[in-house]
Amino acid sequence: MNYEEKIKELGYELPVAPKPLASYIPAVVTGNLIFTAGQVPIVNGELKYSGKVCDEKTIEDGIRAARVCVLNCLSVIKNELGSLDKIKRIVKITVFVNSAEQFTDQAKVANGASDLLVEIFGENGKHARSAVGVSELPINSAVEIEMIAEIKQ
Amino acid sequence: MNYEEKIKELGYELPVAPKPLASYIPAVVTGNLIFTAGQVPIVNGELKYSGKVCDEKTIEDGIRAARVCVLNCLSVIKNELGSLDKIKRIVKITVFVNSAEQFTDQAKVANGASDLLVEIFGENGKHARSAVGVSELPINSAVEIEMIAEIKQ
Amino acid sequence: MNYEEKIKELGYELPVAPKPLASYIPAVVTGNLIFTAGQVPIVNGELKYSGKVCDEKTIEDGIRAARVCVLNCLSVIKNELGSLDKIKRIVKITVFVNSAEQFTDQAKVANGASDLLVEIFGENGKHARSAVGVSELPINSAVEIEMIAEIKQ
Repeated sequence: MNYEEKIKELGYELPVAPKPLASYIPAVVTGNLIFTAGQVPIVNGELKYSGKVCDEKTIEDGIRAARVCVLNCLSVIKNELGSLDKIKRIVKITVFVNSAEQFTDQAKVANGASDLLVEIFGENGKHARSAVGVSELPINSAVEIEMIAEIKQ
Repeated sequence: MNYEEKIKELGYELPVAPKPLASYIPAVVTGNLIFTAGQVPIVNGELKYSGKVCDEKTIEDGIRAARVCVLNCLSVIKNELGSLDKIKRIVKITVFVNSAEQFTDQAKVANGASDLLVEIFGENGKHARSAVGVSELPINSAVEIEMIAEIKQ
Repeated sequence: MNYEEKIKELGYELPVAPKPLASYIPAVVTGNLIFTAGQVPIVNGELKYSGKVCDEKTIEDGIRAARVCVLNCLSVIKNELGSLDKIKRIVKITVFVNSAEQFTDQAKVANGASDLLVEIFGENGKHARSAVGVSELPINSAVEIEMIAEIKQ
């Protein structure tokens, strides 16, 4: 089973790669690494999760938003590489959580991203991660995630 | 026309590379990559844009601040490599916008950076990008930008 | 004197590498680089510095917190590589400071990290750095730091 089949088996769907919100590109390859732009939980051109986690949005919504961000990261990587099977491993994600005051469970929200990566890629999905709470995100997104992955040679 | 000439033709000037605000260095080369420190819009030792975007500062000021941050990133890269013409491509920028409450147009501010990079470097200036809103930045800067670029071998 | 002995001579101790707060791993090697997960100032399973700098915590506490974050970054790198002596140089750190409103001295806090790296590694400890103020951090940590280092081949 390849990685895209695994995503389907887990009950998820790789969204159409979102267009950048502006004049940058969704992913850049340099050497063995691919860097994605920060992804927000847009599906079919529509932002699915907006507002602050633990205020307008529950933690559970934040977790769902993080999953969609990861799927969008993978979608732009697939667009760039042709196939997710060219991924050797996930290296790092940074998870920015649009956080209500005094909300300190950014790690729980980010687990939505981390758990999904391990479900899809197994050992190769294990990654380093930073999660931080920020006061505002573009288009009022609930979560934004950027990814670095290593490419098979 | 080389990249520095292009910057002049566009009506901009490469500032003198700002000294770090503290005990770190402005840029580090590792393999084919150069990582800059986060740059604020300092010109000749003076912070040009302070305060929160959409409060003390307009979005248009934020865009101008982002351009100066990019020029400072390029200035420290030039100092390290000797010439901007050693840049193969811009890989990634992260744009931290000092954001007023409920300001969600970080992408517009970050476009000041992204558009300028494409004007200067053309196809090689296209980059991945994350833009986030933060509540405070060093010395109350309006914007802070860090850059990763690939070096010609 | 090797790097671990240097840490002891400086009066510090390398903490036991903290376990990730969730389903990610503390450090990932890719090519010549090692990326750590964001580290908070946990020692022996206990968060040593919580709350906002310049409000619940003084700047001096923030500096101390930054030092512990760096020691934890080094601890997870040692765990992954076997020895700190496999580090060729420190490439980049990102310092997220849990900041009270109107606190703009993130650079001073981050110096706790930068100064210690130069004390330990000398020239090889000089690094690029971004420091930003964020509104919330996981488990209400005062500081979070992530590190990229280059490995000897």
